[in-house]
Amino acid sequence: MSQPPESLTRPRVAALDEILGRAFPVLDDGFVRLIDYMGDDAAIVQAARVSYGAGTKKVSDDRGLIRYLMRHRHTTPFEMCELKLHVRVPMDAWRQWIRHRSASVNEYSTRYSIAIDAAQRTAAHAWRLQAEGNRQGSEGVLDAGAGAAFSRQEAELHDRARAAYQERLAAGIAREQARKDLPLATYTEAYWKIDLHNLMHFLALRMDPHAQFEIRSYAETIGRQIVARWVPLVWEAFLDHRLGAVQLSRLEAAIVAALGRDGSAAALALAAQAGWLARDAAGELARHRERAECEEKLARLGLPCPWHIDNDN
Amino acid sequence: MSQPPESLTRPRVAALDEILGRAFPVLDDGFVRLIDYMGDDAAIVQAARVSYGAGTKKVSDDRGLIRYLMRHRHTTPFEMCELKLHVRVPMDAWRQWIRHRSASVNEYSTRYSIAIDAAQRTAAHAWRLQAEGNRQGSEGVLDAGAGAAFSRQEAELHDRARAAYQERLAAGIAREQARKDLPLATYTEAYWKIDLHNLMHFLALRMDPHAQFEIRSYAETIGRQIVARWVPLVWEAFLDHRLGAVQLSRLEAAIVAALGRDGSAAALALAAQAGWLARDAAGELARHRERAECEEKLARLGLPCPWHIDNDN
Amino acid sequence: MSQPPESLTRPRVAALDEILGRAFPVLDDGFVRLIDYMGDDAAIVQAARVSYGAGTKKVSDDRGLIRYLMRHRHTTPFEMCELKLHVRVPMDAWRQWIRHRSASVNEYSTRYSIAIDAAQRTAAHAWRLQAEGNRQGSEGVLDAGAGAAFSRQEAELHDRARAAYQERLAAGIAREQARKDLPLATYTEAYWKIDLHNLMHFLALRMDPHAQFEIRSYAETIGRQIVARWVPLVWEAFLDHRLGAVQLSRLEAAIVAALGRDGSAAALALAAQAGWLARDAAGELARHRERAECEEKLARLGLPCPWHIDNDN
Amino acid sequence: MSQPPESLTRPRVAALDEILGRAFPVLDDGFVRLIDYMGDDAAIVQAARVSYGAGTKKVSDDRGLIRYLMRHRHTTPFEMCELKLHVRVPMDAWRQWIRHRSASVNEYSTRYSIAIDAAQRTAAHAWRLQAEGNRQGSEGVLDAGAGAAFSRQEAELHDRARAAYQERLAAGIAREQARKDLPLATYTEAYWKIDLHNLMHFLALRMDPHAQFEIRSYAETIGRQIVARWVPLVWEAFLDHRLGAVQLSRLEAAIVAALGRDGSAAALALAAQAGWLARDAAGELARHRERAECEEKLARLGLPCPWHIDNDN
Repeated sequence: MSQPPESLTRPRVAALDEILGRAFPVLDDGFVRLIDYMGDDAAIVQAARVSYGAGTKKVSDDRGLIRYLMRHRHTTPFEMCELKLHVRVPMDAWRQWIRHRSASVNEYSTRYSIAIDAAQRTAAHAWRLQAEGNRQGSEGVLDAGAGAAFSRQEAELHDRARAAYQERLAAGIAREQARKDLPLATYTEAYWKIDLHNLMHFLALRMDPHAQFEIRSYAETIGRQIVARWVPLVWEAFLDHRLGAVQLSRLEAAIVAALGRDGSAAALALAAQAGWLARDAAGELARHRERAECEEKLARLGLPCPWHIDNDN
Repeated sequence: MSQPPESLTRPRVAALDEILGRAFPVLDDGFVRLIDYMGDDAAIVQAARVSYGAGTKKVSDDRGLIRYLMRHRHTTPFEMCELKLHVRVPMDAWRQWIRHRSASVNEYSTRYSIAIDAAQRTAAHAWRLQAEGNRQGSEGVLDAGAGAAFSRQEAELHDRARAAYQERLAAGIAREQARKDLPLATYTEAYWKIDLHNLMHFLALRMDPHAQFEIRSYAETIGRQIVARWVPLVWEAFLDHRLGAVQLSRLEAAIVAALGRDGSAAALALAAQAGWLARDAAGELARHRERAECEEKLARLGLPCPWHIDNDN
Repeated sequence: MSQPPESLTRPRVAALDEILGRAFPVLDDGFVRLIDYMGDDAAIVQAARVSYGAGTKKVSDDRGLIRYLMRHRHTTPFEMCELKLHVRVPMDAWRQWIRHRSASVNEYSTRYSIAIDAAQRTAAHAWRLQAEGNRQGSEGVLDAGAGAAFSRQEAELHDRARAAYQERLAAGIAREQARKDLPLATYTEAYWKIDLHNLMHFLALRMDPHAQFEIRSYAETIGRQIVARWVPLVWEAFLDHRLGAVQLSRLEAAIVAALGRDGSAAALALAAQAGWLARDAAGELARHRERAECEEKLARLGLPCPWHIDNDN
Repeated sequence: MSQPPESLTRPRVAALDEILGRAFPVLDDGFVRLIDYMGDDAAIVQAARVSYGAGTKKVSDDRGLIRYLMRHRHTTPFEMCELKLHVRVPMDAWRQWIRHRSASVNEYSTRYSIAIDAAQRTAAHAWRLQAEGNRQGSEGVLDAGAGAAFSRQEAELHDRARAAYQERLAAGIAREQARKDLPLATYTEAYWKIDLHNLMHFLALRMDPHAQFEIRSYAETIGRQIVARWVPLVWEAFLDHRLGAVQLSRLEAAIVAALGRDGSAAALALAAQAGWLARDAAGELARHRERAECEEKLARLGLPCPWHIDNDN
């Protein structure tokens, strides 16, 4: 490698320096606040070029290189950037958040200090209904009349739990024990530091439409308000090559290829061979999760679904 | 290295096989249950000897080698052993537990399934008082009369929170949202898998007398009921070289040496130089945490405390 | 969750127990040898069902669940399985291997013991040529005549380096320094322990045709000889949903959809808009890596390439 | 917690900004060069105070808090700082370096580019002799006359290996294979990024007198040239509470206490009970590593060794 230059300045991102310390509100009383960062788009390129040495003179440009790294999951250059946030989150969402192990965390201690006097409140129109098709999700909301009753009950529960907490403290009970019956929705705060590679993993999972609304709201804020300003080339590549990507399994790829080359009969044969076309007592195609996901992908790709064509005939 | 033998059997620990699947009760309704394990004392020795190659013929015996590894923090051979547990823990304690990032976890999902219908209950005599000297701890308990009232209030809080949860579910509210006001003390369950090196780190922190009672109860059970049976040589070395060890800082070591060689005046001079002997308005030694910790260590080591001798004169 | 059963036995995989300790040869003098394992296909299902609780009664079967977990990157249940191998590898390949950080390693120490007296040898017909299109790869081989000369030179280099090593040791030079000029191809040995999730990440990268031949040979052996025997349902899902999968970027998916719905003009417009269709001085499509990768995917999917159709007209 | 301030500036350390980009030379042709950093002493305090909330108003000062965190291994606040270095290191030392898994790395690729044309050279007076007492170490050096011969042989080996490498490349052999017989001492370069907690772990192991000279030279440079400038309060606490600390095992602490309280007979009894005082055929105390380490600690602490007193009688 060539001789290193004898002086450097730290990369700064003006668009990010502008929002340092600003609390982006999330949910009814939460926030995400940028504390510090390290690196930028150029720092990723620079680290990648250490790997490639003189060879990269030929790699066209920074954008092309970043997209290449993203597409081929060359993840180490993205680890060269770090983000440090101050967040305020309901403990219930924090329980999901903290499962991302590749991050550094300093959380507000309710052993040491009095618990934050706030718990997430739900508006009358914001009580979500259990999803029909997806055991893990929600869809639609309760009508606002019924919702209002649940919101009142929620407020009362919070008040009672807080009152009991205060009474325990007043009686001298240790903070570490007094807190035990606070609601899961109680807010906590933390410093959370993570590198960009692991942050994108977090965002890919938590910006997904199947992620729970609460944590999704935080992920959306981090992604669109902070990461998009910080590393715009990475953000674009992330949207194109991760969030917006479609993955076809070996069989799905074979079905698409058969459709194009040999017509739907060949594609049908592949699906049948994989056991996707079993029928129930009523002669309908039996539920089959992998087949159903394939159908969604075919629809997105504007391709006909061979077993539905067949079904119609 | 010599030729590897052409056949092997997996190490088994009879004392551990006996307790596979047995739930050791913890707290009022929790447990720790051994699901599987990998390796034993001999597997650690075997891995260490890969590193040392032919050279280790000279290392006396397994016990000596394991103690050497523990003393000198040669941690990689301990990573060669794994433990898999099924645990049932109040979410409040689980929040601390999960901060140990070097473990694999599958936790019961209250998005997917109905929350476990149990929350940790506190007996009338088990309400702990806030510690005076330690902002993070507890000491002593509330008298049982007052405690009984808090226990009744606790039961009522649990009942109300559970009733609200059930009403939400009955109205069709999504599980992921309905759970939001369950108390932190609600039980959760998880499979938790960790290697022995990281497990010892967990145990060293969580068996410490300053750890909160609840998580300490789990750590004690894991350590004394399971690890002690599994890898007895490691367990002995852990008690001797980690849990029971005393660490002296550079200054503390210098003070001890000065005491022995030059008498308490020399030791006093060192303490004064470090700013440990400042006095408050009343002429008393001002509070100084580092000095106070030194005093405890001197007492444990049966050595005189130079500034207290001085103080008395 | 229901009451846990009061006894368990550890999962065993008969097909794996048969090969415990057997050294599968790799390269000229390397091997991969299974030392121990933890878990099996059923253990993954069991861990996943802890998460899903009672809810999973509805999930059809183990195979379906494992494929679902693989497809949707629910990775934690795969972490519940561990593999421990004894490997013998040229240090040059080991340098790549060790970059996978989520594993536990005990490597043979050449500070402590005499370096292994073997370095990877290259047969006359096995000198690979630098790839034209890929700066990181190789394709084709040198003719055997020229190769034979290089193989003789290689043997001589090894002999000289080893002789110098021995002379240094004989003169009393420390092992840690004497080894400094051994060739990178010198064999080392290690115990390597990794969980199945991280192992699949290793295999996905190192079984890839772009991985270097040497490490690919180890990955192929681990995958096809060991993992396939150990967790056959996982292995099948891995081949279908990871190794054999095709990922389409947002733009590629849009191009495919445009092709089907609106014909190639619409697809061409998308490509042009993305800057994929710039032409060089000679009027040819300029090199564009992202477009070239799209072309390969279209070919695999049996779909026409809109700019090549266009080009022909 | 109180409301966050609405603006922030990133912490900068003037003493570190001065050396950004400067290559500190290490060994004959290596270097360590600071590329970027995140955080400072104050950032650690700030993160710790998130945990402690309002409570920390009472914690005296930054220095006291940092020393407290270091002493009690509260490691998470130290993770809030990051260092990014560009290093040039012989591959042989890099093999040890890279074993620290909690770091991010982009290494120069010799698949992609021509290997760096430099290997570590040894001066005539710098050939170290194998240590007598420690199988892993070195002590003393070869006389310069004999050393000069080894230095000539080393140069010749390097030249031959490099010539073979060049001939292979000239014949079209792939870079990934051509490099296979370069000496282990060949220099490589990398970007290496690590948080301060993990960096201290690296430094504690690699600044240790038992660490190999080469990697110790890098660790000393990183510690004394960079970390000491960056976080002076942390560096002081690290020297006092980690590098300069003495750890006494449970038994060692009991022996010291017995010495002070009950005299050497009681201490001797403890040692005898632990099996430390077995004698060999000649009636001498048999070698016993744990006892020998205890002797060193007693000497450092200025305390008499009970079995040596006994021995003399």
